[in-house]
Amino acid sequence: MVVELISVGTEILLGNIVNTNAAYLSERCAELGLSMYYQGVVGDNAERLRDMIETAKSRADIIILGGGLGPTKDDLTKEIAAEAMGFQLVEDEHTKQRIRDYLETRGFEITENNWKQALVPEGGIVVDNENGTAPGIIMEKEGKHVILLPGPPNELKPMFENQIYPYLNALEPGIIYSKTVKVCGVGESKAETMISDLIDAQTNPTIATYAKTGEVHLRVTAKAEDEKEAKKLVKPMVKELKNRFGNHIYTTDTDITLEKSIIDLLKANELTVSTVESCTGGMLSARITDVPGASEVFKSGYVTYSNKSKRKLVGVKKSTLDKHGAVSSNVAKEMANGAAMFTKADVTVSITGIAGPDGGSEEKPVGLVYIACHVCGNTVVKEYHFKGNRSKIREATVSAALILMRECILEHCSNVMFGNH
Amino acid sequence: MVVELISVGTEILLGNIVNTNAAYLSERCAELGLSMYYQGVVGDNAERLRDMIETAKSRADIIILGGGLGPTKDDLTKEIAAEAMGFQLVEDEHTKQRIRDYLETRGFEITENNWKQALVPEGGIVVDNENGTAPGIIMEKEGKHVILLPGPPNELKPMFENQIYPYLNALEPGIIYSKTVKVCGVGESKAETMISDLIDAQTNPTIATYAKTGEVHLRVTAKAEDEKEAKKLVKPMVKELKNRFGNHIYTTDTDITLEKSIIDLLKANELTVSTVESCTGGMLSARITDVPGASEVFKSGYVTYSNKSKRKLVGVKKSTLDKHGAVSSNVAKEMANGAAMFTKADVTVSITGIAGPDGGSEEKPVGLVYIACHVCGNTVVKEYHFKGNRSKIREATVSAALILMRECILEHCSNVMFGNH
Repeated sequence: MVVELISVGTEILLGNIVNTNAAYLSERCAELGLSMYYQGVVGDNAERLRDMIETAKSRADIIILGGGLGPTKDDLTKEIAAEAMGFQLVEDEHTKQRIRDYLETRGFEITENNWKQALVPEGGIVVDNENGTAPGIIMEKEGKHVILLPGPPNELKPMFENQIYPYLNALEPGIIYSKTVKVCGVGESKAETMISDLIDAQTNPTIATYAKTGEVHLRVTAKAEDEKEAKKLVKPMVKELKNRFGNHIYTTDTDITLEKSIIDLLKANELTVSTVESCTGGMLSARITDVPGASEVFKSGYVTYSNKSKRKLVGVKKSTLDKHGAVSSNVAKEMANGAAMFTKADVTVSITGIAGPDGGSEEKPVGLVYIACHVCGNTVVKEYHFKGNRSKIREATVSAALILMRECILEHCSNVMFGNH
Repeated sequence: MVVELISVGTEILLGNIVNTNAAYLSERCAELGLSMYYQGVVGDNAERLRDMIETAKSRADIIILGGGLGPTKDDLTKEIAAEAMGFQLVEDEHTKQRIRDYLETRGFEITENNWKQALVPEGGIVVDNENGTAPGIIMEKEGKHVILLPGPPNELKPMFENQIYPYLNALEPGIIYSKTVKVCGVGESKAETMISDLIDAQTNPTIATYAKTGEVHLRVTAKAEDEKEAKKLVKPMVKELKNRFGNHIYTTDTDITLEKSIIDLLKANELTVSTVESCTGGMLSARITDVPGASEVFKSGYVTYSNKSKRKLVGVKKSTLDKHGAVSSNVAKEMANGAAMFTKADVTVSITGIAGPDGGSEEKPVGLVYIACHVCGNTVVKEYHFKGNRSKIREATVSAALILMRECILEHCSNVMFGNH
């Protein structure tokens, strides 16, 4: 089937935001085996939006519209799409109640224009929004499927993932099954070289690589009559990837993040963790505690931004700070060891570095970072040189810290297993 | 004049890359005062590309095509665009030489298909590419301007910046000037209601509202002969918005974030800050320290995830935890006060709550959050009820903490100013 994507929003036409929704939706539609030939962006303008929907109807079976479902006057997507598909808008009690609950529990005042979002096409499918007030909408008529999604990525993505993806999957005969092999500590181009032969030879299943800071995700996708058949196609390829990347693979489960895999590793080995951060200012602990149930293994986190706090909170020696400076392997080591002493955590990770833009020098440039990881008495310190702006450096640092943590824990566990203690 | 943007590339339709070129070009065109009503993406397909160019010609004065100028067979943009504009492709000696030089100086082997890039529309304008082999092209006919740019951002952006921007600027006299008024602590629909009369009456300048967690940004945009004239149009509208939103406005500077405005507020009043976080696990300190120079005011951060760490790190009383539970206004207050005592910071903010998905109960549901802010002896505690998934709740909590912080600091400063201390 042919799908067409229409992003609605003047802010896209003005270049105020990058259209990441389009990339996300395109990727997922491709996985579903849907053919996308056109994408469009249009502003909050009735006539032009209508024109675009009509054009899309003439050449696509499925039209996905993102954005323009807000409560404000200039949000027109639902009104125009319903009109174009010949649906009447009626008030939906269920949605009205959901919006009321959503706003009241947040202590937001409900204003009249909120009820605009409770209007839905009569005979259409209402898709509840877990993360906002605007409901998603599906309209079906004469073989055409028009899907309306809220614009904010944190509303659009979960809604598509949980409700729209299965709906679309059911439209196409045969199913798509994919497994993601998540690799850490290997660069993207290195990873691609390691599997270039597999990529060149790919037919069904296909392999797609997605790079994210410190990680590469390899998505193996097969299309078949049924899931059993598809899984049979995917399995040997995943096995081959496991052979090639070995310990660098931290999961083959889509829902498991690097931090989650580390939390699981800690739980499995009954280890606890604490963090001490300088330049990342809490980003590492924030990422670890983003995992539900992290409380079982996460003890405490310190953000020791100033030298004083490094001394006071985790007992870094004044002499070490004076002699080597705050950004040094020695300080990183004392931070990790101090945290281990104070918090009694089995694993402690410390970060000290220069995120910039200021604070760099000839021998200690912006991007210089030391990460120390202490596991049950052994402390490893590594030096890193990251490039990019402040947030890039901080982000790369957090990923590197997680990867080092994972390595040290695995090392520790294998030592224990083989009694090297 | 009306401009339309067409991005060419199957990799965009497959979601392999995010179309950042579109955002960049849209923003620059808006600055030039060009009106963009449509954007399109199409793959490397002759028929569909032709169809898209024809449609764009029917409704725009300027058509910018990005991508599809490569040396390979499936790069068709130049061929199709020239045909649609009725231009003949001829070999351009100058470009041929430039390509030869470009490749030779880099030690690249010249292959036959490289010369495809030396073909240019006869009578068109050739735009040299400083960062690649594909030249940019401008074709003018019957009041239509078709501009072809290479797809790679590191080729497209410099070319547009240095050669195309001046060309377009010369086409259309007059400029666009906009100012963004950033509001916090007011919901989007509430803000929208507060200015609905201004929006209804808007012509020049216009007002657009953009919502982000805890904030609403109001962009006032005017079009005029010159910047002075445009600024004169924008000024009274911004003044009016200031009257309506008063203290809820934290900046009118595009580059200033809420956290940055708070850092500036702290600096201006010579105040220091420390944080104590439970359910946000360091997200607040991470966001504060994301601001360059935060070190001047940020003392320490604690992530007191467990009850034990709440007691040990910031001295929350066991009796308080037993009596009221970790998620309570009492504990939030003791966390903030404890941090103030231990770190000697003037301002301390504490967060305790249930981010979910687990840990909720009948009387303490997921989304219940207490935030306390201590400023020089006075502590305020607020109760919040957030909805959504774990990350949505955590994100909303951090924004709420920043907003409360700002309110308390402003309150403190005005008290000091009026001697209520």
